[in-house]
Amino acid sequence: MTVTYSSKVANATFFGFHRLLFKWRGSIYKLLYREFIVFAVLYTAISLVYRLLLTGAQKRYFEKLSIYCDRYAEQIPVTFVLGFYVTLVVNRWWNQFVNLPWPDRLMFLISSSVHGSDQHGRLLRRTLMRYVNLTSLLIFRSVSTAVYKRFPTMDHVVEAGFMTADERKLFNHLKSPHLKYWVPFIWFGNLATKARNEGRIRDSVDLQSLMTEMNRYRSWCSLLFGYDWVGIPLVYTQVVTLAVYTFFFTCLIGRQFLDPTKGYAGHDLDLYIPIFTLLQFFFYAGWLKVAEQLINPFGEDDDDFETNWCIDRNLQVSLLAVDEMHMSLPKMKKDIYWD
Amino acid sequence: MTVTYSSKVANATFFGFHRLLFKWRGSIYKLLYREFIVFAVLYTAISLVYRLLLTGAQKRYFEKLSIYCDRYAEQIPVTFVLGFYVTLVVNRWWNQFVNLPWPDRLMFLISSSVHGSDQHGRLLRRTLMRYVNLTSLLIFRSVSTAVYKRFPTMDHVVEAGFMTADERKLFNHLKSPHLKYWVPFIWFGNLATKARNEGRIRDSVDLQSLMTEMNRYRSWCSLLFGYDWVGIPLVYTQVVTLAVYTFFFTCLIGRQFLDPTKGYAGHDLDLYIPIFTLLQFFFYAGWLKVAEQLINPFGEDDDDFETNWCIDRNLQVSLLAVDEMHMSLPKMKKDIYWD
Amino acid sequence: MTVTYSSKVANATFFGFHRLLFKWRGSIYKLLYREFIVFAVLYTAISLVYRLLLTGAQKRYFEKLSIYCDRYAEQIPVTFVLGFYVTLVVNRWWNQFVNLPWPDRLMFLISSSVHGSDQHGRLLRRTLMRYVNLTSLLIFRSVSTAVYKRFPTMDHVVEAGFMTADERKLFNHLKSPHLKYWVPFIWFGNLATKARNEGRIRDSVDLQSLMTEMNRYRSWCSLLFGYDWVGIPLVYTQVVTLAVYTFFFTCLIGRQFLDPTKGYAGHDLDLYIPIFTLLQFFFYAGWLKVAEQLINPFGEDDDDFETNWCIDRNLQVSLLAVDEMHMSLPKMKKDIYWD
Amino acid sequence: MTVTYSSKVANATFFGFHRLLFKWRGSIYKLLYREFIVFAVLYTAISLVYRLLLTGAQKRYFEKLSIYCDRYAEQIPVTFVLGFYVTLVVNRWWNQFVNLPWPDRLMFLISSSVHGSDQHGRLLRRTLMRYVNLTSLLIFRSVSTAVYKRFPTMDHVVEAGFMTADERKLFNHLKSPHLKYWVPFIWFGNLATKARNEGRIRDSVDLQSLMTEMNRYRSWCSLLFGYDWVGIPLVYTQVVTLAVYTFFFTCLIGRQFLDPTKGYAGHDLDLYIPIFTLLQFFFYAGWLKVAEQLINPFGEDDDDFETNWCIDRNLQVSLLAVDEMHMSLPKMKKDIYWD
Amino acid sequence: MTVTYSSKVANATFFGFHRLLFKWRGSIYKLLYREFIVFAVLYTAISLVYRLLLTGAQKRYFEKLSIYCDRYAEQIPVTFVLGFYVTLVVNRWWNQFVNLPWPDRLMFLISSSVHGSDQHGRLLRRTLMRYVNLTSLLIFRSVSTAVYKRFPTMDHVVEAGFMTADERKLFNHLKSPHLKYWVPFIWFGNLATKARNEGRIRDSVDLQSLMTEMNRYRSWCSLLFGYDWVGIPLVYTQVVTLAVYTFFFTCLIGRQFLDPTKGYAGHDLDLYIPIFTLLQFFFYAGWLKVAEQLINPFGEDDDDFETNWCIDRNLQVSLLAVDEMHMSLPKMKKDIYWD
Repeated sequence: MTVTYSSKVANATFFGFHRLLFKWRGSIYKLLYREFIVFAVLYTAISLVYRLLLTGAQKRYFEKLSIYCDRYAEQIPVTFVLGFYVTLVVNRWWNQFVNLPWPDRLMFLISSSVHGSDQHGRLLRRTLMRYVNLTSLLIFRSVSTAVYKRFPTMDHVVEAGFMTADERKLFNHLKSPHLKYWVPFIWFGNLATKARNEGRIRDSVDLQSLMTEMNRYRSWCSLLFGYDWVGIPLVYTQVVTLAVYTFFFTCLIGRQFLDPTKGYAGHDLDLYIPIFTLLQFFFYAGWLKVAEQLINPFGEDDDDFETNWCIDRNLQVSLLAVDEMHMSLPKMKKDIYWD
Repeated sequence: MTVTYSSKVANATFFGFHRLLFKWRGSIYKLLYREFIVFAVLYTAISLVYRLLLTGAQKRYFEKLSIYCDRYAEQIPVTFVLGFYVTLVVNRWWNQFVNLPWPDRLMFLISSSVHGSDQHGRLLRRTLMRYVNLTSLLIFRSVSTAVYKRFPTMDHVVEAGFMTADERKLFNHLKSPHLKYWVPFIWFGNLATKARNEGRIRDSVDLQSLMTEMNRYRSWCSLLFGYDWVGIPLVYTQVVTLAVYTFFFTCLIGRQFLDPTKGYAGHDLDLYIPIFTLLQFFFYAGWLKVAEQLINPFGEDDDDFETNWCIDRNLQVSLLAVDEMHMSLPKMKKDIYWD
Repeated sequence: MTVTYSSKVANATFFGFHRLLFKWRGSIYKLLYREFIVFAVLYTAISLVYRLLLTGAQKRYFEKLSIYCDRYAEQIPVTFVLGFYVTLVVNRWWNQFVNLPWPDRLMFLISSSVHGSDQHGRLLRRTLMRYVNLTSLLIFRSVSTAVYKRFPTMDHVVEAGFMTADERKLFNHLKSPHLKYWVPFIWFGNLATKARNEGRIRDSVDLQSLMTEMNRYRSWCSLLFGYDWVGIPLVYTQVVTLAVYTFFFTCLIGRQFLDPTKGYAGHDLDLYIPIFTLLQFFFYAGWLKVAEQLINPFGEDDDDFETNWCIDRNLQVSLLAVDEMHMSLPKMKKDIYWD
Repeated sequence: MTVTYSSKVANATFFGFHRLLFKWRGSIYKLLYREFIVFAVLYTAISLVYRLLLTGAQKRYFEKLSIYCDRYAEQIPVTFVLGFYVTLVVNRWWNQFVNLPWPDRLMFLISSSVHGSDQHGRLLRRTLMRYVNLTSLLIFRSVSTAVYKRFPTMDHVVEAGFMTADERKLFNHLKSPHLKYWVPFIWFGNLATKARNEGRIRDSVDLQSLMTEMNRYRSWCSLLFGYDWVGIPLVYTQVVTLAVYTFFFTCLIGRQFLDPTKGYAGHDLDLYIPIFTLLQFFFYAGWLKVAEQLINPFGEDDDDFETNWCIDRNLQVSLLAVDEMHMSLPKMKKDIYWD
Repeated sequence: MTVTYSSKVANATFFGFHRLLFKWRGSIYKLLYREFIVFAVLYTAISLVYRLLLTGAQKRYFEKLSIYCDRYAEQIPVTFVLGFYVTLVVNRWWNQFVNLPWPDRLMFLISSSVHGSDQHGRLLRRTLMRYVNLTSLLIFRSVSTAVYKRFPTMDHVVEAGFMTADERKLFNHLKSPHLKYWVPFIWFGNLATKARNEGRIRDSVDLQSLMTEMNRYRSWCSLLFGYDWVGIPLVYTQVVTLAVYTFFFTCLIGRQFLDPTKGYAGHDLDLYIPIFTLLQFFFYAGWLKVAEQLINPFGEDDDDFETNWCIDRNLQVSLLAVDEMHMSLPKMKKDIYWD
């Protein structure tokens, strides 16, 4: 479920963001504590080996190694690579959000353009609306693990009322080696044309208006599918991951506190706990976690889109809008500013 | 209220921006003075402890700690992280601004396409316009704390004239576990269709024109809602906040003036007031404040959008446009360039 | 007036851009020479004080201060902050340019869709066109200082022929606490509807085409207004300005040539003229000037948009197009490639 | 074929991205192993020459050279140049993906607007659809090496059923020195107009709807062509390539382990294997490989678009949609939420 | 002419980009060799003066100067400034490319909506098409030096068949102090309206479709004009140019090899040829050349758009499409997948 905190930051106040630091759901702590523990344990282990187990000559060698690692750790372009990569991931994530298919635009049009309050009219509008919802469900099944878990087979889709048994038979009967999520839209077009022929849709302007809107809906669906199908090239993700992991691996050795009595530059203090390295771990690993969370926003992370909720909302609301509310109008009354 | 200063910078002049440095409303000083005082007090306290309370050995230890902190302070990638983050926040903020729903496009269409100067015609146009304003009010109530304070319950919405009692009853009567801000748009569609049937709207082209425009309005509304609902992932905000706060915490120790007689590199001057550290505080904390202000532009900050003003303006102007001004025309006269 | 130099850089040639360095209008020299003189005078003054007035001990203290300043000058993130800020300003500036309202699209439609070469037809088309120009004039008056100077009152607007006295009376008569720049568009819609009723506009498709185009024009206008109303948050501009000004203030002290005989690192040469610091002044202050020029492109800078020229051009051209040129056609002849 | 891994990263888990490090297809290892071997071999060769073949004085000279190289290697702005360049390439790559022409929007319209289930009607719809597919095939032939290999001549296009022999004759017969991929669209327009005249397309609204959609399709095609025709300027690619290659060439010498006994700063450890330099090779060369893969996404890389698959899918699906499925409708039944 | 190399980089191969390094047309070498020679000669001259002409004391002074220059050369923010600037230029360049006016969309519409195969019908379609081409030619004449050379006067435009003598007279006859490139579009609108009145264009939907498309074409034209008229502010270009030129001027002195026997840090090797400085010259000057080439893509650089070719192609293709191909259709036949 999305973690909404905008109401907490409505006003810029005294150290405004500090309140955000004490949240758990969707927080950096929840996402990172396991990696953090592993990192801390490894650091401690190496520290203990250095302090307790190594002999003098081994210590000297380790110290040289540590200084060597420290120097090169700074040459790894973590900040820059992460900055560009996370920007890319965040843009893709947001584009996926704004392209989530919502049937609202279509339901307004169907409710106002497909006439008839009799049973046939109701059936027409509900069926059109159902086809729309069915298409997005088919798409969501292929992009979202959460939706796929809920609807593992087409049986579940039929059971949930998105499809009738007849439709399923026709759907399965179509021979095509390719995905068939576009089929309900063909039905939609055919049904709308039939309604036009029967006079339920008054004229071509109304019909084309519906078709245009349906095509917009389809574009949302196919764009979502495209984002899932063609991800950020694997190489890019690997480059970034390697950079970050290597950086931390290097820090395990390079950021050890060396014996202050040996007089190595920058090593005249032994704090035991490498507070700044741990903080750096939080910054960089946290930044990478941003990417991990957002690279596929259709999973079950705290911050992922609530796709199953969307599916339910869309079906419920759109049927309500085109059926029960069709031509229902509150009595028109003069508003209080009349004159 | 938005702080407008563009007229002050219309021309690039001698040290053009310096005038902006002496403003208070919406300024960095107003936003930061409390944090600045806390920072200065803490710095002074630590400085006094170091200078007056610590013994010689403790001082030596503190000096080492300070140098250690100073060195690592520079490894915190504050600039970079802030640069990318603020760019993201500013883009979102501006997109929210350009998607504020304005009813002007709709009111032009309603005024010119919904005919009839009799009472029924007036009622039609006013009611259509009111539904539009009602929807955006419902959305604003959920995204803006300022609007929510003004309209804490639906009673307030009715009292303010955005909704009639009948409409409210019908609205409440609808059973849906989901937000119902789309309901007035269904009414809009139904009412427009009715007007079309009655011949008040001449033909389908006019009707679809209205519906298209209404859908555009709806998209603005839902996009605003989306920006509120799905914010920048909490992790990202936390990473940035942690980086900045840690940086300043580190500076409290690392930027102390150490005893010049001890000959530490870069510590041969004791200015008492750490002028550059304080300036850095202004830069970085100010940059973070930019993000804090803009991350939710619907609060009550100096720079936040004046949503309540928008609501009033939109209702007043749109009722004026579709009612009093309907078909009102100045007498056509030859302009002064005729021939 | 915009400084156009694209024809000078059509081809990439030997040191292609060097010619641009010798322009005065709109140049970095013209914009910066005053600041540069102030900076140079201050630098010289401090230099003279150091060289001639200070005693030995004072000199030693000043030298320490200078080194201290120099070291911290490099910690001010001028480059980065400027890079992000200027990118933001440049994007906004260009968006304002592409949203300047041009009546051309509307004038083509009016000329071809509003029929009748008689006086009434001419009056119709000219009046429609005038309303369009009037709206943008009203907007320009509030965003552009240059236009405001030219049209300080509505009297000037009437005198310049954008509005008739009748229209002005009606305009003033409307009671609204809000800006009324949208009023001519209501007139436009009403007049177009009247023309449709009279048969001057043939059918609803033509009418809606006009209305759509008018709404596009309105969007340009309101976006310009929005850019003026909601600027880059003051805090951001202050942060950047503070960073740059502080940097140069610091350089005044930190970049002094210290006595080479004292053997300070990096201070074994006394050039008297701090050539690189002066160049840095040009880079950074020039970069900031880019922002100063573009942050409000409706002023009277060399590079600002020529709004008054636009206003004249639009009125002249659009009246010409819808009146004199209405249905005027060159004789159709076979072109030279016929067969 | 595109390497899809989004299902693997649906949830942010413990060291979430590490699983991606062990993939081979499309991975950094597969792309880089040859370059890596070359780099390692050269490094080893130089190392062996230094250690075994050089005399003392030669060694001293090589050591100076190595230190010199190392110092300047850091001045090569690889990170920055790569960051900007890869961002540009990634944006172009994604824009090409979202502009891949899919006939789905058109097939919905054709199926619902071109009437008649008789043979002539079927022929009409199938032919219209075929013209659409033919155009994109012609475009794909010029931008994609993979498609060109499959359809090296127009004969292959005819054989594959995208064109009839008659059409080919007419196509060849047209005299134009320019590419003729737009010809099938003229046929499309003519055929649609004919269908309109015959009453198969009911009215102009339907016809224009088809034409608009066809023009959208054409824009996708021509944009793809444009991306192929006008690439990133060669100079930019050369600058980036030179920077990266030079960097690694410099590293071959500058990152050698020098004799620790000579006491060069930063050279008191001989690890034989330059682990960090090899890692840097992976980061930077991998980053450049991202660009190499994406700069022309119509080749046969692991991550390139599966153009041939698209062509087959589009033809199969679109003929199915406009012919077999034309006016086929499942029986309308009450859905399970009825009442 | 554009340098197309995408087919060379279709697949990511072993050192994939190295092939691009050996091209001459449009290459960094061709663009930079003159500047490179100047730089190398100056460097050599200074080097010879230092080595052969200067006395001992002068050498010592020069060495101090060189070290001073070297240190400050690194403070010039060349990389960053260039990165932001080139990104801006590249974006503008690409936007200009995607806004090049292509008449294809219009020619499809004209061919299918303007009826009549008789001479008057042909004349109508050809004339409409010619007006479209004429407008873009007028625009190209003002933005492109190459086109202006080819059509220095309106006589050349008439001679080339874009305009008839009659049209030219009418065009010249129009009194307007402003550019008149919009005039042919008024003719277009008038002619289309006439065709509608004569029944050659069937109804308003077709007409408005044409007008909309024409307005889209106009927007492309005027955007191109806008890009030419309002360039990147001169100050910005000057700042970048100054930064790069200063950097290289500084390197001439600062990157000299100093006498190794004097023991200056980092100067214990004399290679005579400053290989890394020369490479830096290639990177930075090459990056700036990218900007020089793209800042005005309508010149005659190797990478500039082939505007004259566009003009010819557009006229030839569009006349062919609306005349010879009007209503020409291949015989419809069953495709090979029928059943």
